[in-house]
Amino acid sequence: MKQVRIGLIGTGYIGRAHAIAYAQAPVVYPLKGQLVCEMLAEVSPELAKQRARELGFARFTSDWHQLVADPAIDVVDICAPNFLHQEMAMAAIRHGKHVYSEKPLALNAADARAMADAARQAGVKTLVGFNYMKNPAAQLAKEIIARGEIGDITHFYGTHNEDYLADPLKPADWHCFRHTAGLGALGDVGAHIVNMAHYLVGDITEVCGDLQTVVPQRPVSAGSDDRVAVENEDQAHAMVRFASGARGVIEASRVACGRKMGLSYVITGTRGAISFTQERMAELKLYRHDDPVNRQGFQTLLIGPQHPEYAAFCASAGHGIGFNDQKTVEVRDLIDGIAAGSPLWPDFDEGWRVSRVLDAIVLSHQAARWVAVHEVTVHEAG
Amino acid sequence: MKQVRIGLIGTGYIGRAHAIAYAQAPVVYPLKGQLVCEMLAEVSPELAKQRARELGFARFTSDWHQLVADPAIDVVDICAPNFLHQEMAMAAIRHGKHVYSEKPLALNAADARAMADAARQAGVKTLVGFNYMKNPAAQLAKEIIARGEIGDITHFYGTHNEDYLADPLKPADWHCFRHTAGLGALGDVGAHIVNMAHYLVGDITEVCGDLQTVVPQRPVSAGSDDRVAVENEDQAHAMVRFASGARGVIEASRVACGRKMGLSYVITGTRGAISFTQERMAELKLYRHDDPVNRQGFQTLLIGPQHPEYAAFCASAGHGIGFNDQKTVEVRDLIDGIAAGSPLWPDFDEGWRVSRVLDAIVLSHQAARWVAVHEVTVHEAG
Amino acid sequence: MKQVRIGLIGTGYIGRAHAIAYAQAPVVYPLKGQLVCEMLAEVSPELAKQRARELGFARFTSDWHQLVADPAIDVVDICAPNFLHQEMAMAAIRHGKHVYSEKPLALNAADARAMADAARQAGVKTLVGFNYMKNPAAQLAKEIIARGEIGDITHFYGTHNEDYLADPLKPADWHCFRHTAGLGALGDVGAHIVNMAHYLVGDITEVCGDLQTVVPQRPVSAGSDDRVAVENEDQAHAMVRFASGARGVIEASRVACGRKMGLSYVITGTRGAISFTQERMAELKLYRHDDPVNRQGFQTLLIGPQHPEYAAFCASAGHGIGFNDQKTVEVRDLIDGIAAGSPLWPDFDEGWRVSRVLDAIVLSHQAARWVAVHEVTVHEAG
Amino acid sequence: MKQVRIGLIGTGYIGRAHAIAYAQAPVVYPLKGQLVCEMLAEVSPELAKQRARELGFARFTSDWHQLVADPAIDVVDICAPNFLHQEMAMAAIRHGKHVYSEKPLALNAADARAMADAARQAGVKTLVGFNYMKNPAAQLAKEIIARGEIGDITHFYGTHNEDYLADPLKPADWHCFRHTAGLGALGDVGAHIVNMAHYLVGDITEVCGDLQTVVPQRPVSAGSDDRVAVENEDQAHAMVRFASGARGVIEASRVACGRKMGLSYVITGTRGAISFTQERMAELKLYRHDDPVNRQGFQTLLIGPQHPEYAAFCASAGHGIGFNDQKTVEVRDLIDGIAAGSPLWPDFDEGWRVSRVLDAIVLSHQAARWVAVHEVTVHEAG
Repeated sequence: MKQVRIGLIGTGYIGRAHAIAYAQAPVVYPLKGQLVCEMLAEVSPELAKQRARELGFARFTSDWHQLVADPAIDVVDICAPNFLHQEMAMAAIRHGKHVYSEKPLALNAADARAMADAARQAGVKTLVGFNYMKNPAAQLAKEIIARGEIGDITHFYGTHNEDYLADPLKPADWHCFRHTAGLGALGDVGAHIVNMAHYLVGDITEVCGDLQTVVPQRPVSAGSDDRVAVENEDQAHAMVRFASGARGVIEASRVACGRKMGLSYVITGTRGAISFTQERMAELKLYRHDDPVNRQGFQTLLIGPQHPEYAAFCASAGHGIGFNDQKTVEVRDLIDGIAAGSPLWPDFDEGWRVSRVLDAIVLSHQAARWVAVHEVTVHEAG
Repeated sequence: MKQVRIGLIGTGYIGRAHAIAYAQAPVVYPLKGQLVCEMLAEVSPELAKQRARELGFARFTSDWHQLVADPAIDVVDICAPNFLHQEMAMAAIRHGKHVYSEKPLALNAADARAMADAARQAGVKTLVGFNYMKNPAAQLAKEIIARGEIGDITHFYGTHNEDYLADPLKPADWHCFRHTAGLGALGDVGAHIVNMAHYLVGDITEVCGDLQTVVPQRPVSAGSDDRVAVENEDQAHAMVRFASGARGVIEASRVACGRKMGLSYVITGTRGAISFTQERMAELKLYRHDDPVNRQGFQTLLIGPQHPEYAAFCASAGHGIGFNDQKTVEVRDLIDGIAAGSPLWPDFDEGWRVSRVLDAIVLSHQAARWVAVHEVTVHEAG
Repeated sequence: MKQVRIGLIGTGYIGRAHAIAYAQAPVVYPLKGQLVCEMLAEVSPELAKQRARELGFARFTSDWHQLVADPAIDVVDICAPNFLHQEMAMAAIRHGKHVYSEKPLALNAADARAMADAARQAGVKTLVGFNYMKNPAAQLAKEIIARGEIGDITHFYGTHNEDYLADPLKPADWHCFRHTAGLGALGDVGAHIVNMAHYLVGDITEVCGDLQTVVPQRPVSAGSDDRVAVENEDQAHAMVRFASGARGVIEASRVACGRKMGLSYVITGTRGAISFTQERMAELKLYRHDDPVNRQGFQTLLIGPQHPEYAAFCASAGHGIGFNDQKTVEVRDLIDGIAAGSPLWPDFDEGWRVSRVLDAIVLSHQAARWVAVHEVTVHEAG
Repeated sequence: MKQVRIGLIGTGYIGRAHAIAYAQAPVVYPLKGQLVCEMLAEVSPELAKQRARELGFARFTSDWHQLVADPAIDVVDICAPNFLHQEMAMAAIRHGKHVYSEKPLALNAADARAMADAARQAGVKTLVGFNYMKNPAAQLAKEIIARGEIGDITHFYGTHNEDYLADPLKPADWHCFRHTAGLGALGDVGAHIVNMAHYLVGDITEVCGDLQTVVPQRPVSAGSDDRVAVENEDQAHAMVRFASGARGVIEASRVACGRKMGLSYVITGTRGAISFTQERMAELKLYRHDDPVNRQGFQTLLIGPQHPEYAAFCASAGHGIGFNDQKTVEVRDLIDGIAAGSPLWPDFDEGWRVSRVLDAIVLSHQAARWVAVHEVTVHEAG
């Protein structure tokens, strides 16, 4: 069986999730390739060594350049901060590695485009960590839509709202600055809901957005009286138009008090509707307008083995899967796609498409008008 | 005790609700005036007679002009189709009657403005039937916000989505034409959520909207193959900005499959949030960010006698109030305000302000740009 | 049209609800008789006069004996404390009046039996205020069961839990003593869930119960250090067996912290299930086991005009009805039944049957064994 | 670091879950011992070989006797059918192995007692797979109760209802026979809710139960017309009394149409209540009676890093954990307890205590009376 050897860069919040998925995937799935946790990079030799031991990687380094160049690595997995994604991915691609990168793919659409172009030209496979679309509930939504069960989609309301920066006294961190994060809420969480919209409804062609930095200045550190300016948006929303003719609204926030995992969507069609929130990630609500009028109502489907992806985790319905399980589905896609030479999705091209929509929202906000998503390319090319 | 004699025009869907409230209010409340169901107008003498008997009115007429001129009428209650509101209200005002009108106040903001001006000049009291803000849950939301329990409001997401025209084979009715209904979903249901936004968050100053007629043609009658063009929007959404600095999104739809009574709002502040849907009209969800971090979460407040307005209906919490009970609160406001000479709200001025926001949304859609709400006045004056 | 003249005894909590229903019913429904609020009795002339004015009754008295004997009264409506139900009802029956009594019908099954027997022998109609079964959602549940949509019922779990005496410092009131209330939680709220079980599942034939007085002593008055013994149960639960073969569990509590209106049921059948809680009185959840295995799940039916009883209140689905509306349905049944000479239900016979089940639960608790419901009769006869 | 070498017997439904947890635990947690997946036993050499490869075990055997005797095994993990638990565990104990067994521990309390006694005498550690109490939500419930936040517990309503045998045409399988499964729903799912009751409320001292085989005969195989008798209960419920004085009700069912993972509990105390269902395993609802009366209501706590056990899986609240994650917590307890020589719970003693309650329920059903749990010992000893 073909080996797929992983080189993981970064072992913070999301890097750990990747490592858990690497550990779990070979037991959960009959993978098409042999997953090998080959090497790990962290910022210091000590930390790298410690994490390699904790996360089950064979080798480690404190220099990611060494990792991307290592001949025993097949896939470079980028879990470093956003501002490093491009440099790392480009280096990996130059070395002919497949690249698995966390979202947002880059700080802006132009960079993302360059990455997608480079990967395409190099003929390497790419995958972006939009893990929420790997949730069985999302895949069930896709299946319901594809089968026409809710008719033609007329409206999409999607959010990814969280409250991790709701407290105005929470110090500014890397999320708050352009050079480290690029966009604010749009890049960090909005990217997920745009990808979900693409997955479930199709291409977004026009946007009109509004952005706001709710807390313009934050302490430089916990308890400090010194303040630093927040450089990107705390909340944003946009009206969107899809290629299909559907219309919609997208929200992203990092100051939405009370929302811990507020990725949600309501998708309305001509014959029904579906409704979902990631805070109840094992439930999808389905409404069929063709039901008898006195038996109409949203039905709560508890995800189970009859639905996509779930059976590998548990043979009984309603027992629940978790955040890391989504990553395990993603890792399965990665390993199988590379081992079998089949396509991956969401790839860097989708990563770029998402970034383009986000940049179009920013542009529309600045210009106070509707913006066609393809303008972003023109704009950047110009 | 001073009499308040009602003249009701129209006894369809909403006229019946008014009549039920008239019957109920004097038993539920110790009203400040004596409510008298004096006269009723319908389109034919037969129907008028039948409805007067059914709904408990002393006299009846098939000519509403007679009703508005009748000296024994103190309040003209307009439950006729939208396109008649202005003519009827103007006539009533000319006769010095107080006017209680269903929403939307008029087919457009200019007409609504004329009505509000006339009422002000005549010194009569006015009330518009935005009954959802009379719901104890809405009043509790207002109280929570006023007390600062959720801090400064940063975001408002409000909808009034229903599915009464979701079926594309449902024939066109008066809702679908400009001369009878004015706006589509925006006027019929959107007016409620704009009023709710005003009530809970304050004045809307800028809007940017998108409208769509999802079913452009409908059968002229049930089962017919003949089609007629639908002249107004099936669904609309808009980004809005409030005078307070808060931002928000508003949705209105009459084709939102699955939503039977989808007036809902999520109001986010700097210290908390509230969430509500009229489909669970007896519940308000409250989140406090100041709660200990391991005891944070949305709390479901079941409306009870410790909350506004509920105790008059029932002394026990959680027993529930219904749609008509909201109207009963509204009627209490009407009778008490007129009997005691105190202000009513939402009055025609608010009716006009709501219409102005709706017209601004339409204008912004047509111009594909943000529109300041005060432009509507300028626009119309021009 | 035949008059149905009401004599109302008691205008507290539930008496007001009756009066609201009397005011509302003739406008909501085309009643078969002319409802007349003829006379009202309260404990003093002053209070009686005040309440007659407030609640819209023509005459009043401070002596209920006068009311039950009044020739202009057709129906005696008993909203007095529990311990007076029997005496008042017997007197009314002796005068040939129809009797509409609040629940529980009497302090024990023997008394209830005597009342039912007397009414039967006198040929008067009777109705007991088990209003929760008049809720459209309950009637929809009945319809679903009757149509076989959930198959044969195999299990019933029903509760009526509230928390009105949860606070141990709340003083003892009339609910706490045998001579005024009879049973505790079982009589006050348990009666409703037993009636609901009868309505939806059928006769209960055997019971095995457990009762507990959680707060054995309470202050004699607010803030007092003096304590008085509570004489009846704060909480109770029982296993029950139905004539149909179904099994079940019933709970009743007045100390169930957090439950404001905890009448709820889960009814499981061989082909489906329904689930309901009165705190969301406009929703019924329905599960069909025959649905495709990947489209199974509880469906939330929002009560609307296509369901029983709702249309009279509102022509739109999901707009909600309230506690008093249930009473209005009950009053419609009362007036129509008396005017048309048709049967009423739940009548005194059902009131007795409910009391018999409750007494059997008490007996089974005392004897620490299963008790056949028919033993109660034997027991009392012995 | 001390090795903890696992010998796994059985790789079906629950054996796979164990294997997933073994793979995940070392990455999720800094375990105190080195977890080694040493050997696996299955019914044939071919299957054993395949599963060892799939699940990541170093060696395999088709003879579990060999596994329990293998000197390189520290822990025997029993995931074989119920009827084999005792024999396997006794053999493992004889070889001085620690034993990790799935529930129910044995076919009856007497066998479970013998196993617990043998383990105690041999000085080996034991753990029973009651994984639902390892859920962070259950541990948060425990914490809330231990801190007195809901006061003294007065009532427990707990269920474990599923519908895996709801279809009467589903063939009889090993669950349906005494020699393979022992009890029916009580043993298979009821054991979990009894353990949960023990964990959250304490010892159960008296029970009174009712059992029913709803589908007395089932096809011998899919589609067959031949029927075989079902030998144990499809559904059961019992009233229970706790040593603390609390009362309660427990339900277990395998024919509860619509319930896919119906482990649920409502725990009521003198100052509050908590409510949970495993179908929403990441939520715990909390009610505090000491809240201001107009701000009372159940609060939905989304499990997050501030709550027990969650942080190891994810640093963000509300992102969700799944069924297998519970097993991972359990495996962490196993490895750490064995490596550090600290106690494990729920151990075989708890396994026996659970079985004793279940047997007492059966006995009470047969005798149609309350049964003290300690009678089971006497009964068996007699």
